[in-house]
Amino acid sequence: MKTSKKIFILGGDGFCGWPTSLHLSKHSHEVTIIDNLSRRKIDKQFKTNSLTPIKSINQRIKVWNNLNKHKINFINIDLSKNDFKFLELIKKYKPDIIIHFAEQRSAPFSMKNKNTRAYTVNNNISVTHNILNAIVESKLDIHLIHLGTMGVYGYGNGLIPEGYINISDIKYGFKKKEIIYPTDPGSIYHMTKSLDQVLFYYYNKNYRLKITDLHQGIVWGTETKETKQHPSLINRFDYDGDYGTVLNRFIAQSAINYPLTVYGSGNQTRAFINIQNTVESIRLAVNNPPKNNKVRIINQITETFSIKFLANEISKISGVKIKIIKNPRKEKPKNTLKVENKTLLNKGLSPIKFSTILSEEINSIAKKYKSRIKKDIILPTSKW
Amino acid sequence: MKTSKKIFILGGDGFCGWPTSLHLSKHSHEVTIIDNLSRRKIDKQFKTNSLTPIKSINQRIKVWNNLNKHKINFINIDLSKNDFKFLELIKKYKPDIIIHFAEQRSAPFSMKNKNTRAYTVNNNISVTHNILNAIVESKLDIHLIHLGTMGVYGYGNGLIPEGYINISDIKYGFKKKEIIYPTDPGSIYHMTKSLDQVLFYYYNKNYRLKITDLHQGIVWGTETKETKQHPSLINRFDYDGDYGTVLNRFIAQSAINYPLTVYGSGNQTRAFINIQNTVESIRLAVNNPPKNNKVRIINQITETFSIKFLANEISKISGVKIKIIKNPRKEKPKNTLKVENKTLLNKGLSPIKFSTILSEEINSIAKKYKSRIKKDIILPTSKW
Repeated sequence: MKTSKKIFILGGDGFCGWPTSLHLSKHSHEVTIIDNLSRRKIDKQFKTNSLTPIKSINQRIKVWNNLNKHKINFINIDLSKNDFKFLELIKKYKPDIIIHFAEQRSAPFSMKNKNTRAYTVNNNISVTHNILNAIVESKLDIHLIHLGTMGVYGYGNGLIPEGYINISDIKYGFKKKEIIYPTDPGSIYHMTKSLDQVLFYYYNKNYRLKITDLHQGIVWGTETKETKQHPSLINRFDYDGDYGTVLNRFIAQSAINYPLTVYGSGNQTRAFINIQNTVESIRLAVNNPPKNNKVRIINQITETFSIKFLANEISKISGVKIKIIKNPRKEKPKNTLKVENKTLLNKGLSPIKFSTILSEEINSIAKKYKSRIKKDIILPTSKW
Repeated sequence: MKTSKKIFILGGDGFCGWPTSLHLSKHSHEVTIIDNLSRRKIDKQFKTNSLTPIKSINQRIKVWNNLNKHKINFINIDLSKNDFKFLELIKKYKPDIIIHFAEQRSAPFSMKNKNTRAYTVNNNISVTHNILNAIVESKLDIHLIHLGTMGVYGYGNGLIPEGYINISDIKYGFKKKEIIYPTDPGSIYHMTKSLDQVLFYYYNKNYRLKITDLHQGIVWGTETKETKQHPSLINRFDYDGDYGTVLNRFIAQSAINYPLTVYGSGNQTRAFINIQNTVESIRLAVNNPPKNNKVRIINQITETFSIKFLANEISKISGVKIKIIKNPRKEKPKNTLKVENKTLLNKGLSPIKFSTILSEEINSIAKKYKSRIKKDIILPTSKW
């Protein structure tokens, strides 16, 4: 197995895609970012911004390429279009690995209105299917790594396995040894990742595509070893009501002494992973390809916490108060959550604990850029 | 409950859609057919034809409206486009019921090449999601009836329930009482109906939409009581390798003494329903709306047969020989199939037996129009 691989990173300009691109480039891989910059357009459309002053894709790649041996390439195409441009790229570059971050990834955004519902479903499903279709057509032996979400499982049904469960049913005598853990998405966005699972299942079954689906917890933190190499490489940090996920939003709120807004009871338990662990997990998936006899499903999480616990911890460190607001989402007010996550731990992932680097996140990134925070975009506007 | 309802029939120009439109119109409903005539375009593109000389949509509706009290309306729009034209129609007409046949429905067509894969997925998922999205946005209490397929279940796992099974798993302690029967589609087309299931599940869960998913067996036969009212009302009959489903294809082959082409062992067992029973089943679903606490899933089938049995029976009647050809599909060479179908029987469906009307089908429709058969389109061209 050659050490340096050709890797396409779809959605490589985003919050997880960008630091993953740098991390894999640093580890000697030949990285091509493919992105239509849709996330930046959504910021413009909704007058939101990244807490951190991110540079344009061309600027940040230029800085990276000046500092590092392995250069990153960038191609701007819209993967949701049915023009088979992506197929042409695959045929031309012959990537060993395709990492697929190229989906609209905000649950609140997906629940905003009819347009965001339609955009999320059409974009996410078209992109995923166009990728699968192109891989089949290329006849190349490509490992597809997809960023899924813990949200496909739903919450509150005991231990969550890594994708599959054995079932038996007396009346119907279902004879399959295992099935994909039944899906129970909580938003249109999460539903699209459930749809992706069905696409992966069939394309693996019929065309024997080699696929890893990483069901990721809520990602928090900002910087990775590589983004810290230069200020112009800084990663995106979302804190608004749509794209700001809970922990990063709390960190931003604490920096400006804005009460930590807990939705509802705060007894919702969720799974988390730090951004540095995210990029390392993806490298572990890259270095350890699955067989093609079934889709490999991995839970990409390191810790689980209730929202109330997180708010309390951040309140203790920062002194910022907690404010309970009416939950804008349909979700259980309380759930337990136990998640199997052996695969990545067995492959060497060393979990970064929330407790150990929280202060650093608050005191460095959040306080440094707090003047950029627009208070009027913090509260949730999407309700369901 | 008023007896006459406003019904939109999406895909109402097709093989099942057209006789359903007439049947519901005959039963005093106010029917509006919405169709982009894509099936007719595919015939032109692939130089295939209906065995029966079907009239243009405007001609056949004109004849129907001259003969009958309840008039049918026709609107030509492409439901896969994200232009919300369908939403405007719903707001304007306020239908009580929407019946959704508007999907590309041939498994072999969906497996032909990259273009037919992309078309099938994008068309079917966009159409289904646009319908759901529009119903939510309209805020109207509409019952959506969707034509699913037995193919979402896969074949060979004991008794197949009507949609749901109870499961228990010791290790993971999955606590949900029931789950949707695990999906196991056998083609891109069948996969799209599995994707539809996930869309229905979520839209019912979150928006409480009232949905019936009819998992239909292979439909056979041509005419219904209503299509027989006038020669210009005649229904479509497909016999080509892509759109001709097995039983109708055998009937056409027997009429021209063309050996009955059995794919592989012939020990594949499938579920069937006659076209007259199909339209009656849909009326039963119309007259008996479900609650909105979960998606109602009904198996719309009356009999199960192995392909070899069917070929033998038709050979006995017609004297036409059987020819085994290499199976162009990936499927189990042999399976058993037991299907629960109590719901429609309990509501009064009286099954039309294959054995009782087969001779009539061969001797009337097939022999009458045998000069229209193009022999060169009978054999399968899509392989997977």
